[in-house]
Amino acid sequence: MATVLTLAGDGIGPEIMTQAVAVLKAVNEKFELGLTLEEGDLGGAAIDRAGVPLPEDTLQKARAADAVLLGAVGGPKWDGIERSIRPERGLLKIRSELGLFANLRVAKLYPQLANASSLKPEIISGLDLLIVRELTGGIYFGEPRGIRTLENGEQQGYNTMVYKTSEIERIGKVAFELAKVRAKANGTAAKICSVDKANVLEVTELWKQTMIKLQQSEYPEVELSHMYADNACMQLVRDPKQFDVMVTGNMFGDILSDEAAMLTGSIGMLPSASLDENGKGMYEPCHGSAPDIAGQDKANPLATILSVAMMLRYTFKHEESAAAIEQSVSDVLDDGLRTGDIMDPTESGLRVVGCKEMGEAVLAKL
Amino acid sequence: MATVLTLAGDGIGPEIMTQAVAVLKAVNEKFELGLTLEEGDLGGAAIDRAGVPLPEDTLQKARAADAVLLGAVGGPKWDGIERSIRPERGLLKIRSELGLFANLRVAKLYPQLANASSLKPEIISGLDLLIVRELTGGIYFGEPRGIRTLENGEQQGYNTMVYKTSEIERIGKVAFELAKVRAKANGTAAKICSVDKANVLEVTELWKQTMIKLQQSEYPEVELSHMYADNACMQLVRDPKQFDVMVTGNMFGDILSDEAAMLTGSIGMLPSASLDENGKGMYEPCHGSAPDIAGQDKANPLATILSVAMMLRYTFKHEESAAAIEQSVSDVLDDGLRTGDIMDPTESGLRVVGCKEMGEAVLAKL
Ligand SMILES: CC(C)[C@H](C(=O)O)[C@@H](O)C(=O)O
Ligand SMILES: CC(C)[C@H](C(=O)O)[C@@H](O)C(=O)O
Repeated sequence: MATVLTLAGDGIGPEIMTQAVAVLKAVNEKFELGLTLEEGDLGGAAIDRAGVPLPEDTLQKARAADAVLLGAVGGPKWDGIERSIRPERGLLKIRSELGLFANLRVAKLYPQLANASSLKPEIISGLDLLIVRELTGGIYFGEPRGIRTLENGEQQGYNTMVYKTSEIERIGKVAFELAKVRAKANGTAAKICSVDKANVLEVTELWKQTMIKLQQSEYPEVELSHMYADNACMQLVRDPKQFDVMVTGNMFGDILSDEAAMLTGSIGMLPSASLDENGKGMYEPCHGSAPDIAGQDKANPLATILSVAMMLRYTFKHEESAAAIEQSVSDVLDDGLRTGDIMDPTESGLRVVGCKEMGEAVLAKL
Repeated sequence: MATVLTLAGDGIGPEIMTQAVAVLKAVNEKFELGLTLEEGDLGGAAIDRAGVPLPEDTLQKARAADAVLLGAVGGPKWDGIERSIRPERGLLKIRSELGLFANLRVAKLYPQLANASSLKPEIISGLDLLIVRELTGGIYFGEPRGIRTLENGEQQGYNTMVYKTSEIERIGKVAFELAKVRAKANGTAAKICSVDKANVLEVTELWKQTMIKLQQSEYPEVELSHMYADNACMQLVRDPKQFDVMVTGNMFGDILSDEAAMLTGSIGMLPSASLDENGKGMYEPCHGSAPDIAGQDKANPLATILSVAMMLRYTFKHEESAAAIEQSVSDVLDDGLRTGDIMDPTESGLRVVGCKEMGEAVLAKL
């Protein structure tokens, strides 16, 4: 019997989680998945209860679970506290402790929401882009790191960006494999673009060389291209549809995946998966905890609901239930239901709904 | 008598430089600026002649000059050579050797070229954004750096992101001062947005704290906000006009300034300045050396010509001649002249011209 740990987190986290859990319970029954749900806390909620953003009992539960569903963490309430125990540190620690090295973020344009983008329709219509971000290495975790006082009395901050061959190969394989799966599903040729800054940073020179060797030895059928991070950031604005799968390190991936998500104009729709080597994963919406609208029944629960679909697909290999959720989400959009963040006042036939009503509408479709 | 060193560089560099030099010579005479022009080589051109991308004689001339005008460096011809002497290394070294710590890149939308953007007109009309990028520190120059072999035989790449208080204050002051100048010129309130990743990287935590202290002690009249790099990258796509001046470190600045430039859709129009502490500067277009169209009289010389205007304004404090160049560029756009990169086939009354004809048209307007 498999277990899912839910971590609602902070801000709008609890509201969106309530809707996502209802959906998860419904498919669990309907498709007889035999999943058991558990709860835990992470981030600010955990700081308030236990004084640290990732308490030991949460970590134990997460280790024991087969998958984790996360809402969102952080908020101004915990901005003032000591750096090492801020909410975000809980997120970084759980990624690292569970070995969730492969972060998958899809930037997909829902045709019903095409107007929400700040880009021209012809630039983004049909966009469906996957960013594979290395999540447990690079400058996020590199040592040495800190702030020290120099001899002349001034301060100096330092961090270390570091990758070794095996880490690069591991994430590269995930990207190559996913490119093959996507190409098969779409009837296109498999291709990935590896993003680095090899003209300046040695660590990304090794990244690039390792990707080249991996392609030559194991994935000759997948087309591999390379792009500098600054250019990639430009090309995403200019012509995002030139990409299918992008693979990059932790920091460039942080930046590029947010940019790619924003191209769609509806980051409230985008789920993500963070996977370990055995398919265990943590699933969460790409958006943050939105403290400004927390507790007002205004949040968009769809990214979290779609994260449930990702979980069913990637961890539980249950395509049918995943597809059912995705179809239900698409159906409620077709019906004209919109939370505030995806509302288009210039379009007729739409109706603004709250977080709860949106979640219940998806449930009704299932 | 002041001296300007011109470094044409590689790819389209020589072509665009020819046009920019003609413009510089014309204003030099017309406004009796008394400038002497010298030539040197950098990048691939220097490798071909002297075996290194920044030869000693070029560096001497650059030190002796009051300003440097650069075309562009790099190209596939030098891709295969040893990392430490690639063309880009010459660029990094001249920045560092001349102490050009403040890189200013303006992302400005020319109303005549509004259609070129991939963003919707209402999102970018009137965009005029300045990115102030620290250029001689951070992970670009931090030590230790390299690729080493670990005990288990695999390789590890590493770079160091490092900033000390004085470096942050120095670039912060440039940003605050420029925000004041821009606010005065536009009749708006002065504001800057400092971009960091303080929730993860200690070095940028120091960055943020230093900016806060600087604002409190020396620039209380300038509004200071902070944004994480991933969010900044998103916000530039969502609503770039929310920003006036952005200030950030070397690597985030590399990425954000390219993204901001691409928002306008016409990176062939955007100049940049890299300044030392005394106003000496190197001026260059934001675009690269475009080897694919080199030698075909297709390049857009306007960014290099506008770099001459920036040079006259920032190094030689000669607003009149700078404004005259900028007006001439605007005039030729009004006349419907377009190089290929800024041509809009859907608009009537435009005419595609080559690099030479475009340069000569600007000259005729002067
Ligand atoms: C909250 C923060 C630490 C995190 C990151 O930088 O990884 C977030 O931006 C993300 O992308 O999940
Ligand atoms: C060519 C490269 C080294 C350079 C940089 O990264 O600084 C370029 O991208 C730039 O922004 O001027």
